[in-house]
Amino acid sequence: MPTLEAADKAAGRVAYMGDLVIPGMAHAKIVRSPLPHARIVAIDAEAARALPGVVCVLTRDEVRADPDMEEIYGFVYRDAPLVAIDKARHQGDIVAVVVAEDAATAEEAAELVDVDYEELPAVMNVREALADGAPRVHEEFFPIAPELRPQAGTNICHHATIGCGDIARGFAEADFVYEDEFSAPPVQHCALDLHAVVAQVEDGQITVWTNCQSPFPLGRELERMFKMPARVIVPYVGGGFGSKSRDRLECVITAAAKLAGRPVRCVLSQEETFMTFIRPAYANRIQTGVKRDGTIVARRNTFYVDVGGYAISGARSANNTLKVATGPYRIPHAEVNCYAVYTNKPPSSPYRGLPTTQHTMAYEAQLDRIARDLGMDRLEIRRKNLVRDGDTHVTGDYLRSAHARECMEKAAAAIGWDAPLPASPDGKTLRGRGVSCTIKYTLTPARQMSENGAEIALGQDGVFEIRIGTVNIGQGSDTVMAQIAGDALGVGLDALRVVHSDTARVPVDSSTTASRSTYHMGRAVVEAAGVLKGRILEAAAQLLERGADSLALTSEGVEPEDGGGDGGGVSYAELARRVGSPLAAQGECIVGGTYDAPDGKTYPIASTFWTFASCAAEVEVDAETGQARIVQAAAAATTGTAINPRSIETQLEGGVGQELGPTLFEQMTWDESGQLLNAALLDYPLPTMETMPRYEPRYVDHPFEGGPFGAKGMGEVGAVVVPGAVLNAVYDATGVLFHEMPLLPHKILEALDAKSAAAQ
Amino acid sequence: MPTLEAADKAAGRVAYMGDLVIPGMAHAKIVRSPLPHARIVAIDAEAARALPGVVCVLTRDEVRADPDMEEIYGFVYRDAPLVAIDKARHQGDIVAVVVAEDAATAEEAAELVDVDYEELPAVMNVREALADGAPRVHEEFFPIAPELRPQAGTNICHHATIGCGDIARGFAEADFVYEDEFSAPPVQHCALDLHAVVAQVEDGQITVWTNCQSPFPLGRELERMFKMPARVIVPYVGGGFGSKSRDRLECVITAAAKLAGRPVRCVLSQEETFMTFIRPAYANRIQTGVKRDGTIVARRNTFYVDVGGYAISGARSANNTLKVATGPYRIPHAEVNCYAVYTNKPPSSPYRGLPTTQHTMAYEAQLDRIARDLGMDRLEIRRKNLVRDGDTHVTGDYLRSAHARECMEKAAAAIGWDAPLPASPDGKTLRGRGVSCTIKYTLTPARQMSENGAEIALGQDGVFEIRIGTVNIGQGSDTVMAQIAGDALGVGLDALRVVHSDTARVPVDSSTTASRSTYHMGRAVVEAAGVLKGRILEAAAQLLERGADSLALTSEGVEPEDGGGDGGGVSYAELARRVGSPLAAQGECIVGGTYDAPDGKTYPIASTFWTFASCAAEVEVDAETGQARIVQAAAAATTGTAINPRSIETQLEGGVGQELGPTLFEQMTWDESGQLLNAALLDYPLPTMETMPRYEPRYVDHPFEGGPFGAKGMGEVGAVVVPGAVLNAVYDATGVLFHEMPLLPHKILEALDAKSAAAQ
Repeated sequence: MPTLEAADKAAGRVAYMGDLVIPGMAHAKIVRSPLPHARIVAIDAEAARALPGVVCVLTRDEVRADPDMEEIYGFVYRDAPLVAIDKARHQGDIVAVVVAEDAATAEEAAELVDVDYEELPAVMNVREALADGAPRVHEEFFPIAPELRPQAGTNICHHATIGCGDIARGFAEADFVYEDEFSAPPVQHCALDLHAVVAQVEDGQITVWTNCQSPFPLGRELERMFKMPARVIVPYVGGGFGSKSRDRLECVITAAAKLAGRPVRCVLSQEETFMTFIRPAYANRIQTGVKRDGTIVARRNTFYVDVGGYAISGARSANNTLKVATGPYRIPHAEVNCYAVYTNKPPSSPYRGLPTTQHTMAYEAQLDRIARDLGMDRLEIRRKNLVRDGDTHVTGDYLRSAHARECMEKAAAAIGWDAPLPASPDGKTLRGRGVSCTIKYTLTPARQMSENGAEIALGQDGVFEIRIGTVNIGQGSDTVMAQIAGDALGVGLDALRVVHSDTARVPVDSSTTASRSTYHMGRAVVEAAGVLKGRILEAAAQLLERGADSLALTSEGVEPEDGGGDGGGVSYAELARRVGSPLAAQGECIVGGTYDAPDGKTYPIASTFWTFASCAAEVEVDAETGQARIVQAAAAATTGTAINPRSIETQLEGGVGQELGPTLFEQMTWDESGQLLNAALLDYPLPTMETMPRYEPRYVDHPFEGGPFGAKGMGEVGAVVVPGAVLNAVYDATGVLFHEMPLLPHKILEALDAKSAAAQ
Repeated sequence: MPTLEAADKAAGRVAYMGDLVIPGMAHAKIVRSPLPHARIVAIDAEAARALPGVVCVLTRDEVRADPDMEEIYGFVYRDAPLVAIDKARHQGDIVAVVVAEDAATAEEAAELVDVDYEELPAVMNVREALADGAPRVHEEFFPIAPELRPQAGTNICHHATIGCGDIARGFAEADFVYEDEFSAPPVQHCALDLHAVVAQVEDGQITVWTNCQSPFPLGRELERMFKMPARVIVPYVGGGFGSKSRDRLECVITAAAKLAGRPVRCVLSQEETFMTFIRPAYANRIQTGVKRDGTIVARRNTFYVDVGGYAISGARSANNTLKVATGPYRIPHAEVNCYAVYTNKPPSSPYRGLPTTQHTMAYEAQLDRIARDLGMDRLEIRRKNLVRDGDTHVTGDYLRSAHARECMEKAAAAIGWDAPLPASPDGKTLRGRGVSCTIKYTLTPARQMSENGAEIALGQDGVFEIRIGTVNIGQGSDTVMAQIAGDALGVGLDALRVVHSDTARVPVDSSTTASRSTYHMGRAVVEAAGVLKGRILEAAAQLLERGADSLALTSEGVEPEDGGGDGGGVSYAELARRVGSPLAAQGECIVGGTYDAPDGKTYPIASTFWTFASCAAEVEVDAETGQARIVQAAAAATTGTAINPRSIETQLEGGVGQELGPTLFEQMTWDESGQLLNAALLDYPLPTMETMPRYEPRYVDHPFEGGPFGAKGMGEVGAVVVPGAVLNAVYDATGVLFHEMPLLPHKILEALDAKSAAAQ
C-alpha cells in the first residue's frame, strides 16, 4: 500500500510551508547574536525602521511595552525569551525581528539593526560548564515539566537518577567490571523542509501556520503567551526528526505579527537552522559488571547531555532516555544518572530517538569489548543477556512482546553473519561485521506527556473523514490511519480521506514524536471507528427498518449480512443524504469521536510499549586512507502487526540512511572563540545515495496486545541501532574500539597507526 | 442551463424530508380537534401512555410544567399555542402529540388520547365572524410585526388603510363609478413534499430538520420558545408555495422531542396538511371611478381575508398586499382597506403571491366590465391606464422599469390575440379570450421583513462554495446563485458548489418567499464574490509576485491578463493548497462574505422592486356541460436580465399549471357543522397534465438597475395573473362576468341558463 499522498508528492502537488501564501503577509528576518554569550547593552533599530519597506522591528522594548505579551517561552522548560532581554546565550540567539514588505528588504534592514554587545565568557561544552566557577548561562531555572530538577548554583538544568537492585552489591558480585567513556558531537537534523512560520493576529485570534511537530502544545503555549485563542495549522512537513518538536520560532513570529498588525512569514535559512535546534553533544561513563560466563549483573550509565543555551526541549529529552540507558538486557542491579547541562551552544532537541542512539552506541560497543575480552561470541553474549517476555525492566515495567533476540537473529542473518568475509588480497581492505541491539520507550500518558484523540465523520458526500492531530512528516501517518480506520469500519480506502494537524479541525494530540502515533493515534482511530460504526448501523437500521445486528458495513455501503449484496442495503452516499445528526459538525451526518484512555492512566508505567530493534552491519575500512564504508546493513524491529510493511521498510531504511551520517562523518564544529564553522551544506556533508549501503529491512511482527490491530510504534529505532553496529563492525575489522562518533578517516588512520606502533 | 440538481432529482438521488433518518428517532402523531371551536375540558392520555411502544404524550400539562417552554408560538403574530391550552380554534387544531417507537404505534396511541371537548359556537366565515355578537375566536391579540393593528373586541386581528390623492374627490370627478364584489374560497397548496419535521434537543441545543421556507426566523423563534440555541437545516424541498413559510409544526415537534429526550420525527398526512395552512377565503368590494374615455381616476378596494383560527402568517400576508390592491394602473385617487379576520377555519398562509392573485382577478374582471360598458377595446383601456416609468404608485414609490404594457402586448401576441376565434359549427362550444395585468411587490428591508447575506469560500479542494440561506424549493435557486457567482467571479460552474439553508453553515436570510431571492440573494452573492475576488487576487499577486491589477480570474485559475494562458498563473487548486487565511472557516483558504444593504435601509420604500406581468388566455366553454377549458395561455413577466431563461419559463409555466386549479375547480368545502369535506386528494381534484393548456412563456428582460446583473424576481407572478385572464376569457366567451372562483361547470351552466332566461 503506497502512501496516499505519494502521487501528489511525486508530482509536486503537495504544498509545504515554503509554498504557503497568506494574503497581505509581510516578511521577517531575525537579527541574531554573533557571539555565544553576551550582554545586550543597547539596541538601535532606528536605521532599520527608517528603511523604506520596513514594517516594524521587534526588540525587547516592544515586548516589554506590551502587557499582553509574555517575555519567556517554553512549555517544558520556560527559559527562552521571545527576543533576548538581558543577554544572548548562544551564537544565533534571537535578538530582534525585522518585518518588511519583502524578504530582501527585511534582510537588508536586519543588518542595519545596531546591537551593542558586551561579550561574556562562554561555556562551550559540558566540561567547561561543570567546572568550578564556570560562567552561568542562566541565573534562574524555571522547569515546567514536573520531573525536571535543576541543581541550584550550577549549569545543571536537570539531574535525575533511576535504578533497580543494589548497584554496589551488583558490582561486588561481578567477576569483572568494565568501564568506558563514550561521546558524540552535535549534528544537525538537516530536514529539507526548513523551519517556517506564518503568523497572524487578527480580531483577538492567533492563527499560525507552521511545520511544527507539536501543534496542540504549541497552540496552548501561544494562548498563554498572548492571552488569546490560537489556532495552529500544520501542512505536510518535509521532515522533522525532532528538530520541529518544540521550537520557539512560532511564538517569536506571532509577536512580530502582533506588532506588525498583519500576517508575517519567516522561513529560516539553512544556516539559521544550525543555530535553532541541534542534536546535542553527548558523553557518558558506562560501567558494567559481568560474570565470567558473560552474564551481566550490574550496570551504571552516567550520561551528560549538552542542552545548549536553552533547555526548552533538551532537558526532558535527556531525562526520557533514563529508562533505556542500560539497554535491552536483564540486569538485576542497575543505575542511570542523567545530567542535562546548559552551555553556550544552540539549544538541543531530540533527533530520531536521541539520546537513545548514543546510549546504544555506548553499551553495545562496550559489550563487544567484554565479549572479546571473555572470548565469547558476540551474538552469544547477547543471547544470554537479552530481555525476554515477563522480565522486569530497570523502570519496574513488566516487559511484554519483548522479541529482542528475534530482532538480532533476523538482522544478523540478513547480512549473512556466518558467511566468511571476503579476503583482502593486498591487505589494504579491512573487513568486519558488527551488531547492535536496543530498546526504545514511547511517550506515555502516565507521565502526562501523551494525550490524543481521533474523530471520524461520515461527510455529506458519503466519504469518511478521519481527523487526526498526527503531523504527516513523511512517515506515512495518513495512510496508516486510513488503513486502520478502513479495517475498523470495514470499508475501502477510496471511501476515506484524512484531515491532519489543524487544531481547529481535529481532536487534541500531544505530538508527532517518540514513535508514538501508530499505537496511540491508531487506538484512538479504532475507538472512533467503533463509535461511528455503531451510530451508522443504528441509523441504517432505522432507514432500512431492519435490526442493526443483521447489518454490516461493507465497501459498498451498509448491507444485510445475509443479503449477499443483492440489494436491501444503503450506500454511504445515500446514508449521508438521508441521515442527520446534531452530534455532527456542519455539513456532516454522523461523527464518531473518542479520546484514547491508554494503560498509563490506570497504573504507572514508564512506557505504554517498548520497541526492540537490532542492526547488523558489514564494513570495509581502507587501511591507507582510513575511510570506512558500510557495505551492507540490515535492521530488524518489533512492529507488532505490520500495518503497512512498505512504510516500515522505508522507515528502517531511512533510519540507516540518516544515521550513517553522524556515525561516519557528520559533526558540527566550533572554533576556539565559539564560532560555528560549518553551518552550511557546502561545509557540512550529508549522506547521499552514494553512501547508502545495500540494505535489508526486517520486521518482527508478533501482534502486540492492546495495539491497534496489534501494532506498535517503530519510527525511530531504525536509526538508533546504526552507530553501535558500525562501531562494532569497525572494531571487528580493525581491532580498534572507537569511543566517539563520527568515525572520520583521520581518526581511523591515527588509531590504526597507534595500534601498529604498539604492536611493533 | 438546466438546474444543477436536475440529474440527481431525475434519478431519485435527492433526499427530501421524508427520506431523512435521524439515529434514534421516535415518531410523532398529532392528536387534533375534530371540532372547529371547542373548550378543552379534560385530556386523559393514560391509555395512550400505557400502550407498549409509546415514548411520551405532550399535552398542555407537560407544556405548562416546563418553565423553559413558552406556550405561545408566532414570530409575526403570537397567537398559536404549542398544543391547545384552553380551547381548539379550528378543526385539526393541535391538542396533543403522541410519540412512539414507530409511526403505527403513534397513530394507534393517538386514538387512545381521550379529550373531553365542550363544543363552542363557531364562526366559519368572515361574514359570521364580523356579525354583531359573534363568538370570539381569540380573547386577546398579540401581534409581533409592528404594522399589524387588531381591533379590540372584534374578530378583526388586523385592519389597515393606505391611499393616495383624495378618494372622495376622485369619485366626484369620475363620469362613472363601477362597484363589484368578488370572492374566492380557500384552497390547499398540495405540495407533493408533505410538511415534515425531525427535531432533536440534546446537550442544550436544538437541531431541527424541516422543509420550512424560513429557516432563520424559525431558528430564532425556537430559541425564544425553548431558551437555547437552535440550528435549522432544510434539505431540498419539494414545493412550498407559501404553505411552509411560518408553520408552527417545528416548534410543536421540538417540544415533543424535548419531552421525549430523543429525536422525534413527524410527517403530516395529506389530510393533515389541509388543516395546517391553507390559502384563505377572500372577498372584496372594489369601486372604480372612470372618465368617459376610460381613464381611471379613483379606485377603492376593501378586502377581507379569512386568516382562520390563528393569524401567525395570514395577517401580515394580507397586509402586504395593500400595496398592490389597486393594480398596475395610474390612479390619482385611491384607497385600500384591508381586514384580516379570525374565523374557525384552519390558519391561512400565503399561496404563490396571494392575495395579490385575488386582487388581480377582481380589478381585472371589473376592468373588462368597464371596457365593455364603455365600448372600449380591452387592451386599449389597459394601454391607457397602465403605469409607466416615473409614475408614482399608491404607496408613494417612484416606479422604475415599469414595463407593464410590454408584458401585456407580449402575452396577448403570444396567443394570437387578434386572430379570429375558431367558429363553433354547432354553437355548443363558446370561445373567448381574456387578458390580465398585475403588479407585485417583494419583501423589503425598510419594513424589517427582509435581510440576507451570502458567503463564498474557496475550499481546500479548489472549489468555490456558495453559502446561501435561500431554500431550494424547486425554483432553481442554487443554479441561479451559482450562475451569478460564476459570472461575478469569472469562473465556470464546475468550479462552484452551493450549500443552502442550514443556519449553522450560511449567513442569515429572512425567507424564501415573495419572489425575493434572485434580487436580494443575488445581490449578496455579487457582493460576496467581489470581496472574495479581491482577496484571491491579493493572494495570487503575492504568490506569483505580480501586481494584483495585472491578474484576472479565469475558469482555469488566476492568470496574468496579458499572458494569453501560456503559464505564469496559478490554478484554484494550487491556490487553495498554498494560501491560508484566518478569515476562513475550518478547511478553507479564502472567504468572502457580505450582508446586503439594499435600498430600503436608506430611504423608506414599499418594495425594493416591482414585478409586472400579464396573462392572456383563450378558453372554450362547453355550453351543454358548463365545462370551461383553457385552450392556450401565455404569460409575460418583467424579469430584469433573465439569469436563467429556462428557469423563468418553467416558473411561468408552473404558475399557470398550479393556478388553473383554483381558477377552474379547486376549493375546500365545509359542511354546515364546520366539518371539512374534501381533505384528501381523492375528493380534491388537482390540475393534471390533461388540464394543462398549450402555454407560451414570455419574459420582458430589460436590465433592472440595482439588481444582480440587472435581474429582479418573478417567481409568483406567473400564477397571480391566471384567474383574471381566465375570468375575462369566459366573460368574452359567454357574456357572463363571474365574480367568484372557481368556475365550476354547474355555476357556468346556471349562469348561461340565467342569461338565456333573461334574454327570453
